Amino acid sequence: MGVKTRVVQVGQHSIGSQAFTVIAGPCSVEDQNQLRLAGEFTQKNGARLLRGGIFKMRTDPASFQGLGLQALEWISSLKKELSMPLVTEITDARHIEPLLPVVDMFQVGTRNMYNYALLKELGKTKTPVLLKRGFSALAEEWLLAAEYVLKEGNPNVVLCERGIRTFEKATRNTLDLGIVPWVKARSDLPVLVDPSHGTGVSALVPAMCWAAAAAGADGIMVEVHPDPAKAKSDGYQALSFEAFGQMMAQLRQVVKAMGRSLD
Amino acid sequence: MGVKTRVVQVGQHSIGSQAFTVIAGPCSVEDQNQLRLAGEFTQKNGARLLRGGIFKMRTDPASFQGLGLQALEWISSLKKELSMPLVTEITDARHIEPLLPVVDMFQVGTRNMYNYALLKELGKTKTPVLLKRGFSALAEEWLLAAEYVLKEGNPNVVLCERGIRTFEKATRNTLDLGIVPWVKARSDLPVLVDPSHGTGVSALVPAMCWAAAAAGADGIMVEVHPDPAKAKSDGYQALSFEAFGQMMAQLRQVVKAMGRSLD
Amino acid sequence: MGVKTRVVQVGQHSIGSQAFTVIAGPCSVEDQNQLRLAGEFTQKNGARLLRGGIFKMRTDPASFQGLGLQALEWISSLKKELSMPLVTEITDARHIEPLLPVVDMFQVGTRNMYNYALLKELGKTKTPVLLKRGFSALAEEWLLAAEYVLKEGNPNVVLCERGIRTFEKATRNTLDLGIVPWVKARSDLPVLVDPSHGTGVSALVPAMCWAAAAAGADGIMVEVHPDPAKAKSDGYQALSFEAFGQMMAQLRQVVKAMGRSLD
Amino acid sequence: MGVKTRVVQVGQHSIGSQAFTVIAGPCSVEDQNQLRLAGEFTQKNGARLLRGGIFKMRTDPASFQGLGLQALEWISSLKKELSMPLVTEITDARHIEPLLPVVDMFQVGTRNMYNYALLKELGKTKTPVLLKRGFSALAEEWLLAAEYVLKEGNPNVVLCERGIRTFEKATRNTLDLGIVPWVKARSDLPVLVDPSHGTGVSALVPAMCWAAAAAGADGIMVEVHPDPAKAKSDGYQALSFEAFGQMMAQLRQVVKAMGRSLD
Repeated sequence: MGVKTRVVQVGQHSIGSQAFTVIAGPCSVEDQNQLRLAGEFTQKNGARLLRGGIFKMRTDPASFQGLGLQALEWISSLKKELSMPLVTEITDARHIEPLLPVVDMFQVGTRNMYNYALLKELGKTKTPVLLKRGFSALAEEWLLAAEYVLKEGNPNVVLCERGIRTFEKATRNTLDLGIVPWVKARSDLPVLVDPSHGTGVSALVPAMCWAAAAAGADGIMVEVHPDPAKAKSDGYQALSFEAFGQMMAQLRQVVKAMGRSLD
Repeated sequence: MGVKTRVVQVGQHSIGSQAFTVIAGPCSVEDQNQLRLAGEFTQKNGARLLRGGIFKMRTDPASFQGLGLQALEWISSLKKELSMPLVTEITDARHIEPLLPVVDMFQVGTRNMYNYALLKELGKTKTPVLLKRGFSALAEEWLLAAEYVLKEGNPNVVLCERGIRTFEKATRNTLDLGIVPWVKARSDLPVLVDPSHGTGVSALVPAMCWAAAAAGADGIMVEVHPDPAKAKSDGYQALSFEAFGQMMAQLRQVVKAMGRSLD
Repeated sequence: MGVKTRVVQVGQHSIGSQAFTVIAGPCSVEDQNQLRLAGEFTQKNGARLLRGGIFKMRTDPASFQGLGLQALEWISSLKKELSMPLVTEITDARHIEPLLPVVDMFQVGTRNMYNYALLKELGKTKTPVLLKRGFSALAEEWLLAAEYVLKEGNPNVVLCERGIRTFEKATRNTLDLGIVPWVKARSDLPVLVDPSHGTGVSALVPAMCWAAAAAGADGIMVEVHPDPAKAKSDGYQALSFEAFGQMMAQLRQVVKAMGRSLD
Repeated sequence: MGVKTRVVQVGQHSIGSQAFTVIAGPCSVEDQNQLRLAGEFTQKNGARLLRGGIFKMRTDPASFQGLGLQALEWISSLKKELSMPLVTEITDARHIEPLLPVVDMFQVGTRNMYNYALLKELGKTKTPVLLKRGFSALAEEWLLAAEYVLKEGNPNVVLCERGIRTFEKATRNTLDLGIVPWVKARSDLPVLVDPSHGTGVSALVPAMCWAAAAAGADGIMVEVHPDPAKAKSDGYQALSFEAFGQMMAQLRQVVKAMGRSLD
């Protein structure tokens, strides 16, 4: 649809290239064993970037808020061991400095899309920014939020559709795949899709991964947990290893049908 | 996903079988030439059922309301000539009788999903019913609306997701593809997707046709017009012949990747 | 705000006049005792029209669907005995004829606002029509739906805002009081508000009755039941007699502050 | 409805007391003359707190972003001269320190309701916080956001409903007055209503001010500008002096009918 996609380099991986990007891993980093298992398994099955929340945005202040800065050291060692770039959420501009040496891509979560103070600070770095769409943001507002980062001098912005809030209660959010071609006709930024938050129901995630690829997205971001039932956050939407493996096998076919590849 | 899909036979075509269904044609039937051209071209490219509105639901009582019963005779001849079963919208229970000999599948439009009086009357026939989701209907209400038809004795119900009304204004509706696997896990009724109304923007329709197939839908319903710019209704969302041809070529690949076929 | 309101006469009562209209009664008519008690009590406390569903629109075909035509005779006697005009929902054009002699105002429910076939038939009578807003209808579509009645020759249309479907789950619907002055600036049709459906929670109803009056509505329609806990439909949103009496006492003050009166 | 409202003291004024609070002033502070005129006029007509944005959250990074810290000195003098406490928006935790000596109440805007990092910092002060509801926040999430402030030790939180994002386009937002009694049944925090953002149309603001009072809100926050057509932000929703004066005259009657007073 007209606009040639900009390539954003994250470690060895090029988002927005002919390769279809798969970012996988747990919602929250819980311990070394969990993160290592998730990284090894998802990488073996085609994931190229590792996701894992260190600081979590939680609606209820009494919920688990993430391991915080104390876990940075071992996370840093682990991602090198795995040779996977790390994507993690940033919720406070004051965390940019300590996270910078460890993080390969900052994720701005849906509730911070309108946090322009944070976006401006990320614009002063060169680290890639994965900008999730606010769950009630017009697509136009989403593109303008990206401008807050770009305008400060950081060209490495990747967009991520993650579902919007609607009247429907069967799914946690309504994944708006129609916005993918709409954005791609107007912006050169790569567009990923997050079916885990987009549906909030693990059984619906695989079909939405395939649909995202067919809709023309440049990749997906998906929650995977060695034992979803025991996850400290959002376990109901995480794929088990088995489900992830099956999803990836079928994804490979769809990606190929769309003229792209997984690697 | 558990539930084995029920096959609904429409003429020679089996909806819900291994074959992926493509229903195509104009929003409103305007004249013989328009309908013949649309039927011939779409059939040649893989469509198996012909859509065309004879009675239109229009928000504004001053808008074009369809050709009405006077066109039935030539429409009947034409569909035989084309060997394509006809899908048309029913908006008034009193039209069932005159339409019955001509129509192969009754379409209940989004604004009539809650018209239980109409649904009950359709339940008393054996003609297949394509039940569109109300644009603000919970998926649960949609399944219950289908019960109004089934309960009266007509088992030939096919569901059709066609976008829901949300805050987003970039698209006419938000196509809710995540509901496709949700419904398929709960009901044995075939599920189609209508990306024309689902996006309301012709440029976005092809990507959503492909995404629908990857999401596990049993088929699509798409508006095609020989000259979209001159259409009497909804021309901005209709595909031109050229666009339809290109969409179908790529759709064939995606459908195959999903283990189904177009014929 | 500019447009002078048209007066719609229902029995002795003038909707849209200086008098603020209160329509009260049960969601569904269940039996003679229930309707008589509700009529007597609400009338004594300031209600001037009696509501009561004879045919109900129910999402689930297995739910109570109303008493139907068999109850018409005693309902007719009872409303005369009470000297209260009767407002009841019409769900099927074929019911117009049998209901005409008994009903003083036809209510078109939220799920039938787009049922243009029904609206046209009501336009051929002179009986007042209370047109509820579709729960997902744009205000503009609501005004156009009214045109379907007006255009056929029936000038007696009254609009009723009853809440729209949004993401919020704390209330059954979101009562859109801001649309009241918007409509009144554009149309001369009287506008009522239904806080029972608008909130779906009886404890919130009184505050929304007062707010409706302050927002400039011409009246309210409110569900009252002698024993809400035993109601066959929507009991959770009906006011008890005690709650209705208290609501009306305060309403009288607000209506007076707005320069209108209850009688 | 059960829960006794907590009183939050802002300067001489008690929010949540028998007095109905009116906060008025321009969206953005533009210059000394504008702020002085707005303060003098609104105070004379019953407003007790002065609103005025110094830092603005703007969707488009190219829009006017507010005067910033450089204006603090004269704003501080002016509010003392006027004897009106100042309410202003805080968008960045790093602004708390410079704003603390000047600001009497921090306003957290709708796009920052989920900015928990900011809320925690405000919780460490004792300055009252006016927490606007996120335009897509469930009421439950709004109450939990308030917990982020309260938990840190600042008990001076006031809630403000300001409209939610829905499918309706006739108004900028849908003002959710039904949530006022819902919140007041669950929380002791005072609840204000902002009809300026809640409707986004100045002609609809007066009716919603009156409706807010009748719904049981503890006050309103309303945009007033000496010359709305020349406002640097949101002029289409600001009241002129004349419109504000007329609104307040009628508001006085409604507030009295509800058993409260304006002073």
